[in-house]
Amino acid sequence: MKLAEIGEFGFIARVRQRAESCADLVLGIGDDCAASRPAPGELLLTSTDLLIEDVHFRRAWSDPRTLGRKSVSVNVSDVAAMGGKPASLYLGLGIPGGVAVEDLDAFADGVLEACAEYGAVLAGGDTCRSPGPWFISVTVQGRVPEGELLTRQGARPGDLLWVSGRLGDSALALRELLAGGRPAPALAARHLDPSARVALGRALAVQGLATAMIDVSDGLLADLGHILDSSVVGARVERDALPLSSLFRDALTAEPALLDLALAGGEDYELLFTSPPQCAAAVAALAADGVPVTQIGRILPQEDGLLLVDALGRPCPLPRRGFDHFS
Amino acid sequence: MKLAEIGEFGFIARVRQRAESCADLVLGIGDDCAASRPAPGELLLTSTDLLIEDVHFRRAWSDPRTLGRKSVSVNVSDVAAMGGKPASLYLGLGIPGGVAVEDLDAFADGVLEACAEYGAVLAGGDTCRSPGPWFISVTVQGRVPEGELLTRQGARPGDLLWVSGRLGDSALALRELLAGGRPAPALAARHLDPSARVALGRALAVQGLATAMIDVSDGLLADLGHILDSSVVGARVERDALPLSSLFRDALTAEPALLDLALAGGEDYELLFTSPPQCAAAVAALAADGVPVTQIGRILPQEDGLLLVDALGRPCPLPRRGFDHFS
Repeated sequence: MKLAEIGEFGFIARVRQRAESCADLVLGIGDDCAASRPAPGELLLTSTDLLIEDVHFRRAWSDPRTLGRKSVSVNVSDVAAMGGKPASLYLGLGIPGGVAVEDLDAFADGVLEACAEYGAVLAGGDTCRSPGPWFISVTVQGRVPEGELLTRQGARPGDLLWVSGRLGDSALALRELLAGGRPAPALAARHLDPSARVALGRALAVQGLATAMIDVSDGLLADLGHILDSSVVGARVERDALPLSSLFRDALTAEPALLDLALAGGEDYELLFTSPPQCAAAVAALAADGVPVTQIGRILPQEDGLLLVDALGRPCPLPRRGFDHFS
Repeated sequence: MKLAEIGEFGFIARVRQRAESCADLVLGIGDDCAASRPAPGELLLTSTDLLIEDVHFRRAWSDPRTLGRKSVSVNVSDVAAMGGKPASLYLGLGIPGGVAVEDLDAFADGVLEACAEYGAVLAGGDTCRSPGPWFISVTVQGRVPEGELLTRQGARPGDLLWVSGRLGDSALALRELLAGGRPAPALAARHLDPSARVALGRALAVQGLATAMIDVSDGLLADLGHILDSSVVGARVERDALPLSSLFRDALTAEPALLDLALAGGEDYELLFTSPPQCAAAVAALAADGVPVTQIGRILPQEDGLLLVDALGRPCPLPRRGFDHFS
């Protein structure tokens, strides 16, 4: 069935029927605005992300449901990085007129499924025809108790540097996809269907263990750079401490230069955070559900800059950092 | 100067420098999320809109600054339609790589200028390369005291039907632009640089004068249809009561069929609302700054449906309603 048969309002009605509600949502999909009741003592967190076909994703690599899931996860990851919990999402969708209703339904299924997994609801959106590629915009609202907000600012010299999960899998999968290959399913999933680390972010915030936090979307060193800039500090990263999956290690054995993907590849959606040394045992205890938490370095005074060192403490060259959409 | 010279992060830094802050914004542009402090007793309003090049606008018709202004106004209009006041905006921007920095700066100027006019701040966003057209997503957050929320639901038989401003100017300007003409500046401005009726919406909410409200974006009859569906009522619209500008009346004299543009043209961004008859004098008194408030009909029981009548009360045929992106 073509989208023209149900039209814009037909599609909205289908999504509206399936969207869940929650206690704080006074008014969801179907009016000029959604209306929700803020919780007393909690800050409102908001972040917006774009996913553009052939820039952020290719339709050939991902079924629509998985694309819907990823659209939610990358956005929710920003709330996790502040120590917050997602509450509601708003979806802007620009789609070519010829798209099948089945594909759109599957996309919406993925969005709603991921929302439910994160305990959030889809509360509004806008659907339009695109004369070009798929354009997806997702805006998440989350909450965090006022005293628990974690920003990029707050890392202090002496703090330990930690990262969740494994680095580089997503970039390695992307590299194989770009080369026309078919990455191993576990690797592909890390790129096409990442998880936002909401539970870990909340635990760090509730227990007051982190001094600064960011999610790794632009690449480890680029995102660490954001913490260093905001906190006005330097850092030393231990190359051999980077948490790598066995699939990534296998690839690395064959091609050592691939380590750059773990350092600068991006789209890991892991949490990178700093924490005082006396909290190390409490932080390590947060590893759960196969998501390790690994110390990868230490915060230094600003004048030391950003150092990458090998197992013997010798400086290694830094790869080109992260991704800029226009450079 | 080309965007590639300053890059994505250079552009964000330029916007961040110029964005204003406000008391409730704990954290604006520059972290993973914006963080703001909700006001006790107020509901949070949220709406998201897409503006896609060659679907919603053409670059040849509008300078970038005016496009930035319109992107804000159409989104803020949704908050006005709930009786609320806008607080913060989030901008997603997909732009072709070859765009000049001067054009992007002018676009950001327009966004920031319109935000300031509405008493709102730009609090976050995402900027990416688009392989196709300009793709703009705007999400607004606003506030309304809990008892003052105005929805599409609440119109009752016997209520009077009112609309602000003048209808059809925007659609008439668009028609002339599509035909390759140059509409009169006052007419063009109504399409390219519309105003959100925030002050009027707030006044209606504060004084408790409206029972249901919507903004006219899809066309008068289509948006009235949304009120009728949500409120489960019918309505009678008096054709000769529609508020028309002198420019529109001139065009209408030459071509009577143009009246359809006032009934179904869309993008008026006026407020359409219902109000009990005993409030009529108070509503009429809200006309201000050249924005009239005009009674154009009355709410009927649902079984009467939607009637358009002439000066003698005779039914007139209804034009095709509104715009569907896919039908």
